[in-house]
Amino acid sequence: MPLRLDASAPGFEKEFSAFLGRNRDTDENVDRVVAGIVADVRARGDAAVVDYTAKFDWAGITVDNMRISDGERSAAAEKVPAAQREALTFAARRIEAFHRALMPKDVDFTDATGTRLGARYRPVDAAGVYVPGGTAAYPSSVLMNIVPAKVAGVGRIVMVVPTPGGTLNPLVMLAAEIAGADEVWRIGGAQAVAALAYGTQSIKPVDKITGPGNAYVAAAKRRVFGQVGIDLIAGPSEILVVADRHNDPQWIAADLLSQAEHDPSSQSVLIADNAAFADAVVRAVEVELETLDRAEIAGASWRDNGAVILVPDFAAALPIVDAIAAEHVELAMEMAEAEALSEKIRHAGAIFLGRHTPEAIGDYVAGTNHVLPTSRAARFSGGLGVADFLKRTSLVACTPQSLAALGPSAVALADAEGLGAHGRSVSLRMGR
Amino acid sequence: MPLRLDASAPGFEKEFSAFLGRNRDTDENVDRVVAGIVADVRARGDAAVVDYTAKFDWAGITVDNMRISDGERSAAAEKVPAAQREALTFAARRIEAFHRALMPKDVDFTDATGTRLGARYRPVDAAGVYVPGGTAAYPSSVLMNIVPAKVAGVGRIVMVVPTPGGTLNPLVMLAAEIAGADEVWRIGGAQAVAALAYGTQSIKPVDKITGPGNAYVAAAKRRVFGQVGIDLIAGPSEILVVADRHNDPQWIAADLLSQAEHDPSSQSVLIADNAAFADAVVRAVEVELETLDRAEIAGASWRDNGAVILVPDFAAALPIVDAIAAEHVELAMEMAEAEALSEKIRHAGAIFLGRHTPEAIGDYVAGTNHVLPTSRAARFSGGLGVADFLKRTSLVACTPQSLAALGPSAVALADAEGLGAHGRSVSLRMGR
Repeated sequence: MPLRLDASAPGFEKEFSAFLGRNRDTDENVDRVVAGIVADVRARGDAAVVDYTAKFDWAGITVDNMRISDGERSAAAEKVPAAQREALTFAARRIEAFHRALMPKDVDFTDATGTRLGARYRPVDAAGVYVPGGTAAYPSSVLMNIVPAKVAGVGRIVMVVPTPGGTLNPLVMLAAEIAGADEVWRIGGAQAVAALAYGTQSIKPVDKITGPGNAYVAAAKRRVFGQVGIDLIAGPSEILVVADRHNDPQWIAADLLSQAEHDPSSQSVLIADNAAFADAVVRAVEVELETLDRAEIAGASWRDNGAVILVPDFAAALPIVDAIAAEHVELAMEMAEAEALSEKIRHAGAIFLGRHTPEAIGDYVAGTNHVLPTSRAARFSGGLGVADFLKRTSLVACTPQSLAALGPSAVALADAEGLGAHGRSVSLRMGR
Repeated sequence: MPLRLDASAPGFEKEFSAFLGRNRDTDENVDRVVAGIVADVRARGDAAVVDYTAKFDWAGITVDNMRISDGERSAAAEKVPAAQREALTFAARRIEAFHRALMPKDVDFTDATGTRLGARYRPVDAAGVYVPGGTAAYPSSVLMNIVPAKVAGVGRIVMVVPTPGGTLNPLVMLAAEIAGADEVWRIGGAQAVAALAYGTQSIKPVDKITGPGNAYVAAAKRRVFGQVGIDLIAGPSEILVVADRHNDPQWIAADLLSQAEHDPSSQSVLIADNAAFADAVVRAVEVELETLDRAEIAGASWRDNGAVILVPDFAAALPIVDAIAAEHVELAMEMAEAEALSEKIRHAGAIFLGRHTPEAIGDYVAGTNHVLPTSRAARFSGGLGVADFLKRTSLVACTPQSLAALGPSAVALADAEGLGAHGRSVSLRMGR
């Protein structure tokens, strides 16, 4: 049974706070292992990458077959049935369209003093995209990482994906092709992140690394941050469904299970304003679990990390929603009510409005990104987007007249800070 | 003497690459010390913060005087002379105006399928701003951190600043007042970063931490990343001046020294297309050093980390400029030429155009931010801005009809990925 809380009950604050404080990450001391791997890849390059890959993923790896050739990729991609190919292409087009709308606009203006001020966005030269291998190899994640990089204008997109047993995943290869990866390497883990960050004899380094991975990949990304840029550190998936009693309990049960089925450490939370409806959803979850392929994973997640929170009304749900700051928030109610409620939510990775917007639509074809902040990171971070593949350069241009207007204040502040050469670089130009 | 390189000489690539590879950071094993401090602050809260502060900054610290009261702050701020007060206010207004122009626009549209898609920017609830203490306590940095947070709409801005010997810096206190800090605490180092990230009995945690600091502060920010958001990790300052022979060598010398005077590990590089002019600048640097207050620091930086690079023409300078990816790039030439060259630069924190735009203008009053990427981070990062204090939430709303249009592709992809509940959450709503 998932945890059950009642927002109106005495002691709720304390129980809810304990629930929030639960740590679903299993970090432990991967940090030490990862530090060793990163240092080794920096020192030995390809040889180290091959050694770790042989140990963890595939004994057949060599320096020569480390890169997946375009031919191998196409051969694998051709195995994908037409319906899936069409669905992937459809998804890629929608992701591209939405991310084009996210492109920031350059700023460039001349102010009243005659000083030109600007901010200019340019893509990083090269981006590395980490794609998990094995059972968690999701073609949709390939699109979600590569398409925004492409929209941003990144010139070189390098994908890494471990291939356990040497087998290529046709869907992942097709997604790489559709999205436009420039290079694909069959490597993963901390060794792949280190190779992307520092480069090896055969892999040229990149400037930014994105993409989800296990605890080792996350620790490696954190470690190479500074050498390269990284995106957010993804933790276990989460969904928070706020649902009124007019929903079909079965629909809501499927929504809760859609994140629970990712991983036993995923988290699904239902906020309901009606106890009988909440009970009906809990029963529907059990029924769904009877036929679900990934019932074992989903069931464990629901029992160990799930929660049902009863509220007197949805206004009372707002502080709870913001405190959880979930990756996905579903507002399953009449659209007008969902819209009004969504306006008041401060922290969420993505919000899905109304009765006909299951979160899974956002995982695949809505067009929005499914790489979203987890573990309360929505308090300070949004999902992956074009901005992750762009950087801003400031521009300043003074005329002799505008320097005369700005200069005296600059000199006064440089003096106040005791930075003589700062002041002099300005005052010399003002003829002082 | 600074390093001297000639881009036309044989062996340039190798020498330049060695120059780029030089590590000016002195990280060593601060990581281990910082891990201990962060863990201790998490465990013991205020008591740990007081202990470390007493040890490193001021023996007089107690839990009761840890927060600087508004009265203390005003009393210190009142000591600032009128001219400096005016200069700070002038700077704050210009920084505010420029950062308002950087505010991202929300996206919200309904596409051809009838699906509403959106991206909404909201401020973080609370931001922590780290301000270094002692000699490097710069009021301008207080403005550069707090004003963008204010423009973004952050409700609670918490400033921390170590006060060696217990003394408040009047200019820093005034800057905090002008910019609008909500709380100011006299703490610093890794202990202050840990207190901001995790909270203590008296300090409520924040969601984002920005601001420069020494190696301990940088290591602490890296360590708490994930618990809170952080801005870029600031390293030693850099300036790259591209100057033709029509410049006054004295002006260019002052520009080079304006970053050299920050720290012995700062880096100033001159790219010139004329050897006689480069020689004149090198001589002018020596002359300037004779009277500069911070000559010892600036001289050490120039000798140990400075460089003069001769190029046949400025087109040949472009790959060098991009490879250095400097924090500050000055294009000291006719404005039209500077504008044309700036368009071709891919990697720079900020570009200063023409003969009358010394970099120091950007440090104080241009309005652009002076917290900028160092150590080649301009390859993947811009400077501090309003975006650092905002986060994006995606919005998706389907109608029954638009779900019918999107749903089949979502189900196909969910099936392909073996995620049954994902597919079911969609197909149930399509009546399947």
